[in-house]
Amino acid sequence: MNSEGLDKLFSPRSIAVIGASQHKGKIGHDILNNIKEFGFKGEVYPINPKDKELMGYKCYPSVLDVKGEIDLAVFAVPSSLVLGIMEECGKKGIKAVIVITAGFKETGPEGKKLEMDLVDIAKKYGIRVLGPNCLGFMNTASNVNASFAAISPLPGDIAFFSQSGALCAAILDWAIKEKIGFSKFVSLGNKSDVSETALLRYLADDPDTKVILGYIEDVKDGKEFMKIAREVTAKKPVIICKSGGTKAGAKAASSHTGSLAGSEVAFDAAFAQTGIIRAASIEDLFDYAVAFSFQKLPQGPNLAIITNAGGPGIIAADAVERSKFAKVAAISKETIDTFKVSLPKGSALNNPVDVMGDADDQRYKIAVNGLLKDPNVNGLIVILTPQSNSKIKETADVLVETRDGKPIFASFIGGKLVDKGRDILQDNKIPNYRFPERAISSFNAMVKYKNSIDLPKEGAKDFPVDKAKVKKILEEAARSGQKEIPEYTARDIIESYGFRLPKSILAKNAEEAKVAAEKAGYPVVMKIASPDILHKSDVGGVKVGLKDAKEIEAAFEEIMKKSKAAVPNANILGVLVQEMVSGGKEVILGMSKDPQFGPMLMFGLGGIYVEVLKDVSFRIAPIIPREADEMINSIKSIALLKGARGEKPADIDSIKEGLLRLSQLVTDFPVIKELDINPLKVFPAEGKGGAVAIDARISIELEKQ
Amino acid sequence: MNSEGLDKLFSPRSIAVIGASQHKGKIGHDILNNIKEFGFKGEVYPINPKDKELMGYKCYPSVLDVKGEIDLAVFAVPSSLVLGIMEECGKKGIKAVIVITAGFKETGPEGKKLEMDLVDIAKKYGIRVLGPNCLGFMNTASNVNASFAAISPLPGDIAFFSQSGALCAAILDWAIKEKIGFSKFVSLGNKSDVSETALLRYLADDPDTKVILGYIEDVKDGKEFMKIAREVTAKKPVIICKSGGTKAGAKAASSHTGSLAGSEVAFDAAFAQTGIIRAASIEDLFDYAVAFSFQKLPQGPNLAIITNAGGPGIIAADAVERSKFAKVAAISKETIDTFKVSLPKGSALNNPVDVMGDADDQRYKIAVNGLLKDPNVNGLIVILTPQSNSKIKETADVLVETRDGKPIFASFIGGKLVDKGRDILQDNKIPNYRFPERAISSFNAMVKYKNSIDLPKEGAKDFPVDKAKVKKILEEAARSGQKEIPEYTARDIIESYGFRLPKSILAKNAEEAKVAAEKAGYPVVMKIASPDILHKSDVGGVKVGLKDAKEIEAAFEEIMKKSKAAVPNANILGVLVQEMVSGGKEVILGMSKDPQFGPMLMFGLGGIYVEVLKDVSFRIAPIIPREADEMINSIKSIALLKGARGEKPADIDSIKEGLLRLSQLVTDFPVIKELDINPLKVFPAEGKGGAVAIDARISIELEKQ
Repeated sequence: MNSEGLDKLFSPRSIAVIGASQHKGKIGHDILNNIKEFGFKGEVYPINPKDKELMGYKCYPSVLDVKGEIDLAVFAVPSSLVLGIMEECGKKGIKAVIVITAGFKETGPEGKKLEMDLVDIAKKYGIRVLGPNCLGFMNTASNVNASFAAISPLPGDIAFFSQSGALCAAILDWAIKEKIGFSKFVSLGNKSDVSETALLRYLADDPDTKVILGYIEDVKDGKEFMKIAREVTAKKPVIICKSGGTKAGAKAASSHTGSLAGSEVAFDAAFAQTGIIRAASIEDLFDYAVAFSFQKLPQGPNLAIITNAGGPGIIAADAVERSKFAKVAAISKETIDTFKVSLPKGSALNNPVDVMGDADDQRYKIAVNGLLKDPNVNGLIVILTPQSNSKIKETADVLVETRDGKPIFASFIGGKLVDKGRDILQDNKIPNYRFPERAISSFNAMVKYKNSIDLPKEGAKDFPVDKAKVKKILEEAARSGQKEIPEYTARDIIESYGFRLPKSILAKNAEEAKVAAEKAGYPVVMKIASPDILHKSDVGGVKVGLKDAKEIEAAFEEIMKKSKAAVPNANILGVLVQEMVSGGKEVILGMSKDPQFGPMLMFGLGGIYVEVLKDVSFRIAPIIPREADEMINSIKSIALLKGARGEKPADIDSIKEGLLRLSQLVTDFPVIKELDINPLKVFPAEGKGGAVAIDARISIELEKQ
Repeated sequence: MNSEGLDKLFSPRSIAVIGASQHKGKIGHDILNNIKEFGFKGEVYPINPKDKELMGYKCYPSVLDVKGEIDLAVFAVPSSLVLGIMEECGKKGIKAVIVITAGFKETGPEGKKLEMDLVDIAKKYGIRVLGPNCLGFMNTASNVNASFAAISPLPGDIAFFSQSGALCAAILDWAIKEKIGFSKFVSLGNKSDVSETALLRYLADDPDTKVILGYIEDVKDGKEFMKIAREVTAKKPVIICKSGGTKAGAKAASSHTGSLAGSEVAFDAAFAQTGIIRAASIEDLFDYAVAFSFQKLPQGPNLAIITNAGGPGIIAADAVERSKFAKVAAISKETIDTFKVSLPKGSALNNPVDVMGDADDQRYKIAVNGLLKDPNVNGLIVILTPQSNSKIKETADVLVETRDGKPIFASFIGGKLVDKGRDILQDNKIPNYRFPERAISSFNAMVKYKNSIDLPKEGAKDFPVDKAKVKKILEEAARSGQKEIPEYTARDIIESYGFRLPKSILAKNAEEAKVAAEKAGYPVVMKIASPDILHKSDVGGVKVGLKDAKEIEAAFEEIMKKSKAAVPNANILGVLVQEMVSGGKEVILGMSKDPQFGPMLMFGLGGIYVEVLKDVSFRIAPIIPREADEMINSIKSIALLKGARGEKPADIDSIKEGLLRLSQLVTDFPVIKELDINPLKVFPAEGKGGAVAIDARISIELEKQ
């Protein structure tokens, strides 16, 4: 997962092309040709036993025959030859290879074995591997095109990596047309070694890269990915399009790269927690990329709209209102006053500012200048429709000349008429969008990112807990092969991590039960206590609402009798006498394991809200206090906790603390597979507050112990 | 609202251009020039007192000086001259005019007055008016370009109308580049006479138009719009982008065309009920338009995906799964068996069908042919990324040659490399989309439309009701100036329309109350009955849970005493003795007035579901039975009525009947402004079922009586 040695991979001083060929159309030809044509300045060694010379480079039968040092070897040979040549590369001291060759993990069990062997050799010699089953990469800053792509990218400050090689080809073609340039362009292939995470870490410190983009179908190590992503997003925006989310998509994913697609909620949570911006489509990915690449971040959410057309102005305002983070700027009185003088009668001076259909470039200039100076405005979208009086090129020039650091988005809507303006904008790094909605979703993404990097740094809470006790309980459970922890043990576990539980006292006889009931306070609940009786109610082992000593006595006898009758050989410890908790709102705190990201916490209101309305929120553990707040506040039924319909607001802080304690518990003990605290009863904030865990269910993974 | 005389407007035999000018850049010049250049075959009369001749046409000082008949006059004169010239046009017998001129309703009260005067003159002479404040229109089939647009459209079978003139200019420019052609292209302007509704009606029978597109910010007459739209969508697809929905958007809308934006839920309901496809953006509008224009409708929802690239295949499958109507086709065993023989090893034979990166055109042909023949497949998306072995042009040809009526969507992803394929596709009317998601949302729109036209025709239910009684009650209420109808009268109203109410008997004394209680069945509720006491509980006028004759007697005395004490001069009719209804699920049926569409029905579950979760659905009245079903089934909490968590399913048919009866009531009596039946208690379906309206609130519009 680390990025050590990736410098050799991406900025080699010398490259060997293994399987280089003189035949056009062969991958070994195309790679060598790309290296040459892209102007690589270092040594190039074609490796091929049949040729003496290729494209003017001396050809060698094997890397072992090359005298000079080789930084990078590119494999374009059949998969059957890869392992042998890897050994040679190791012996030669090569520290970075690209395995273009397909026929590995993506083909089934045999290929998977081959890939594991490949990784073993790489580890033995300390070689970094890009691929197998990839297109290669380009590094425009070092003039390296170590790929068989038919098109080379323009230079730029966007780094792009993709788990789909074919998508790389399509995007290269498309980006040329859209004049989008790249610093690095990397096809990840099967990610046998170099993964999205290693690349993120490397690109974080790459001086040529301003924005990191990725297309992925899974991540290799969810925990590590999150750790690194948190660090990287603090330095640069990371925008990722993740597919394979839906059932059909996941099916396609497993037949494609043999990857196990993580559940969508886990990815959404992971992206939200790490500050990664998730793009819903490839189109969004590049819409956002251009915005981030071309401009500084906005200092706030307030967007001003300038338009020469009412309709598109409305469309833009609608889009801002619908967006999650952007806001329609309230233009200051001062600016409006200057507009009253400088803009013609009939102009709309409030946001959207309508400079009217006959606006020339000078009228746009007045509006742009005024709004850029307005402290209430953090960014600008300038809409132009081609009208008879429009000065399209000149208006583009106005934007180029007047910009002052606040982001400006253009939406020159049309075709050939506006193309000349578009060219000026593109060449001068003002992002232009075919329709205003795209500009606004890009501004929205920038505001979102700005908000995320401005958040104060927080660590996970570390509550004083009885970790040793839980360790002992779980070890014992594992030893005895208990997948499901019995209720009274589950109670012990969560109590050890600071959850408040109903008062509960074990009584061995009716006399003890009476004393216990006095302590717990009437009315009480009584339950049979036995590791051999799981379904206590079914056997008549539970009595509720017991009000006095007489009832206790009768209940004790009855519970004992019925339990013994139902499970004759049960090891009966006695009867639990418990406080009856009344009142409070019922919520659920839970955890389940995601195959890619590990323990994932869940929060929701009890009953129908979880079961029918599925109104729940997720975060990957461990969580920080802010993330607990986000979990609580992102459910739709939150108003019910905050005191809707005249009810008393619940003690939300105690839910927050519960989530943080739960996070600590499941992080301390990865052996816990599933956990539900259901219900947690939360009391009104204005009284004593607090929350009581009424019931807890815990299961563990036996094989992991 | 009707479309009478629109033939003269859109297919005139002769056109007068009032305010025609020799000066380039003047609107009067550009219109005349467009008419000439677009090849209009009829007579052209420039009207302008200063010139003798313009662009080879004889010029006249006034329309009255023209000898021949004039079908259409285009106004390009200052707004101050419009009324006078309208009179002349009327006298000349002109039956259609376009008022390009701005300065009417959109400018404020004075302009509004001017526009009303314009409409009065038009009505006097029977003239149809397009505009004012518009760009004009083009009719490619009759070679009419009666607009001042700088660009003329290509011919095609898409009709487009827009409430924003500037948007027209931008779209014309854009459509040329995208090779999208139009039958009619109409700028509606202020819609003083010719509205979206009149146009819809006209375009429904226009043989040159296959698909109708519109951009609107409001509708002129919601009821009429819905009536016509229902008829038109049965004949042709109607796709509309409606903006001005959000707060900021609506603000911009009112400063733009002075229009009052209807609420978004009302538009959503109206579009859903009439079968109009709502496009979320201008981009979607044209994505859909091309799909509908180029292809036949799919016969089912099942889409097959062919791709030469895994990643985009997954992206496509994800998009299909996320879509509302499209489904990932289950390819038949027979097809897969033929693929096993005809496609190379390594191809994915299930949907998405991956023909692999080295696929040439012949491999695509095998896949396309196989899937088109498969009865499980209703449509195809063919994804191509440019790989070294790709035959882009030839693959495009394959699609053109093999298609057989099932819709085929292409997504050739890339830039210059794939452009040649794109050209072939466009020229041969196979819609091509930059990214697969756009193709899939277009297919989804086609399936949605196909579903809507396949629905059996239904009329509104006509229950036998006591309309005369309600009429009398409402007239009396209006006469006495009661905005809020008293509860016992509201009960009468809904009972007259067939709602079941708790048994309720008026008792004048304690003895009568006892008899009433026997009839209603103990326990009962007693309430003071007086038109002068609205807040009965507050004055001590309500007693609940009365169990026997003794309690009845005491309650009667107490209620009378307290009520008389609280409102000494109240006209007391007696005490209502009511059945206490227990059990049942609480739902709400409601109605409020939308300014554009009139009575809008609401349905939701009672309590927090409406108040906190806002889980409600809307439809414009009158509704048909299917729409009542849609209302009920579209709330998220529907599972609670259908028997989630082991509860008994509620009698949903009785809710449906309630909605239909409510629809009949509010349609019969437009004077009703707001109505809530809250709660309606619905009983389990498996017992006697049924529903009882516990409480009803009705308010009326006094001014409308």
